[in-house]
Amino acid sequence: MTLPRVLLVGATGAVGQEFLRVLEMRRFPMASLRLSASRRSRGKRIRFMSQELSVEETTPDVFIDSDLVFISVSSTISQELVPIAVEAGAVVVDDSAAFRMESHVPLVVPEINAADLDDHKGITAIPNCSTTQMVMALYPIHKVNPIRRIVVDTYQSVSGTGRDAMDELEEQTRYGTGTGTPPPRVYPHQIAFNVLPQIDSFLEGGYTKEERKMVEETRKIMHAPDIAISATCVRVPVYISHSEAIHVELTQPMSPDEARKILMETPGVEVVDDPSAGIYPLALSAAGRDEVFVGRIRQDSSHPNGLAMWVVSDNLRKGAALNAVQIAEELVARKLLRSTR
Amino acid sequence: MTLPRVLLVGATGAVGQEFLRVLEMRRFPMASLRLSASRRSRGKRIRFMSQELSVEETTPDVFIDSDLVFISVSSTISQELVPIAVEAGAVVVDDSAAFRMESHVPLVVPEINAADLDDHKGITAIPNCSTTQMVMALYPIHKVNPIRRIVVDTYQSVSGTGRDAMDELEEQTRYGTGTGTPPPRVYPHQIAFNVLPQIDSFLEGGYTKEERKMVEETRKIMHAPDIAISATCVRVPVYISHSEAIHVELTQPMSPDEARKILMETPGVEVVDDPSAGIYPLALSAAGRDEVFVGRIRQDSSHPNGLAMWVVSDNLRKGAALNAVQIAEELVARKLLRSTR
Repeated sequence: MTLPRVLLVGATGAVGQEFLRVLEMRRFPMASLRLSASRRSRGKRIRFMSQELSVEETTPDVFIDSDLVFISVSSTISQELVPIAVEAGAVVVDDSAAFRMESHVPLVVPEINAADLDDHKGITAIPNCSTTQMVMALYPIHKVNPIRRIVVDTYQSVSGTGRDAMDELEEQTRYGTGTGTPPPRVYPHQIAFNVLPQIDSFLEGGYTKEERKMVEETRKIMHAPDIAISATCVRVPVYISHSEAIHVELTQPMSPDEARKILMETPGVEVVDDPSAGIYPLALSAAGRDEVFVGRIRQDSSHPNGLAMWVVSDNLRKGAALNAVQIAEELVARKLLRSTR
Repeated sequence: MTLPRVLLVGATGAVGQEFLRVLEMRRFPMASLRLSASRRSRGKRIRFMSQELSVEETTPDVFIDSDLVFISVSSTISQELVPIAVEAGAVVVDDSAAFRMESHVPLVVPEINAADLDDHKGITAIPNCSTTQMVMALYPIHKVNPIRRIVVDTYQSVSGTGRDAMDELEEQTRYGTGTGTPPPRVYPHQIAFNVLPQIDSFLEGGYTKEERKMVEETRKIMHAPDIAISATCVRVPVYISHSEAIHVELTQPMSPDEARKILMETPGVEVVDDPSAGIYPLALSAAGRDEVFVGRIRQDSSHPNGLAMWVVSDNLRKGAALNAVQIAEELVARKLLRSTR
């Protein structure tokens, strides 16, 4: 077996940097690693393991001689770059929303639907960060007691938007409650000491794209086209980790203890659930961790077959880079890359 | 008609200060106003209108010769003080949870159930801040199309806890993402750049007292004992205003336009709902305002009779001081005070 030649596009972004940490920590087997980003980062040097890598500009040429390409850029740019990478013979793991819902594109959380990768046509995609942590917590329950309906409200960190948004929160925070806070550049309104009930743009019907993604991606990943889902996606002044308040209706009643037992046996999930001792998942504690943390598991008081829970995960890690690298590991194990065939 | 002699207990707290602003703005008719607080605030001087008032220590004697007493202290202290005030002949508007669920105590949001005041036995209570803004938005809908079920997840500001919590957020915020952040004193975990899925203590079954309050108080105020309700109450690093993501199931379908029309005609509610122009309720904008702001009104995609919405209000204002003063205005108008009988 030949090791894959890897290219990371968007290497200097918040997710790009997390990719480097994850590739290093998991000792992902590679023949080579190249980094690319937009023109303004050209020539920037980034440490990886014992090497120092130079960032190239993302031009069509950069895709030549790559077997595996991680792309972490905006949907608009992905739309343009992904076909070039596939044309050049690489398999792409795309981080954006550009191709996720296309029927020939596997949208994968490896713990749930790794087998969907077998039919890939060159493009694979990771879900939106808010979807990934939700399905990680819900799919194991769904398998034993099908979920009929999900109501979810999110508390999403600014790193989901990127480095600029993290800078904006930091800058606005410095002004405290005083006057003179500079006008927002990244978000439509001030994010410091505020919460914004808008992530991405609005669609017909009053939901945002982010909320629609949670609906459609969940159905696709779980192979459950009929689940009813409603989401309110909200940005909060937190740097890293998304939190989610989830209320589900199952086909049959399920005790919180049974749900806890199922989730404790689920790889990639950690149950953190001793609330009277002050123990429940927290954004700050989840940052920099691989797991999806689930707690406050309780009988939903508004429905006989209901469960409520609180789910937190690092949106850059399992919500993005880690999930993408896990997909790459599956592509290697399943001999689905050119170099491993 | 004689004007009432008024006593404000807890005058130096975050809500107490808001009481003074509201009494002034509404020119609440009083024969006199006295302020009291704990011993350490004794002698503190506070401006009110053109006067300067001296804060007294809250002892049993302070209640003598008052007709109307606003009490804004913890439940434990209310439990002790309220009976003394009633014994002294005053009517109490209590801000705490101590007496709210007692059957002889009117729990009132004047726009909804002012008539419940008529049967008072000396004690009246305002709801918890998170309940008040929710019922303000939901009751007008419930009246024309009864609500069967409510799922609500909250984004509550630290001023709901009090001045110490506001100081704690400010102090922790100064440390940014760096190290050395002092350990939390008020909350069980750091609140800056974090969200805490715990407000008040945990009960049997895994819900918190705050969440239970939203269930029981809503049923009592709306005279709707059968509504199914589930809440997750979450503290966010915001100084003032609570935000709520609400999902309701009605008896019949209702279009978002119909809901908007009903709410636009509701006194005390302001519809702020043009999301594609970036217009929706925001915590920062609601701070210092009297109204309950409702936006993002949409068909709930997970239920045929469902509506989803985003509700924001200043928790110190309509969530506390304003609602209490409105109750006092009703007590005067209905001649329910000793001085007005």
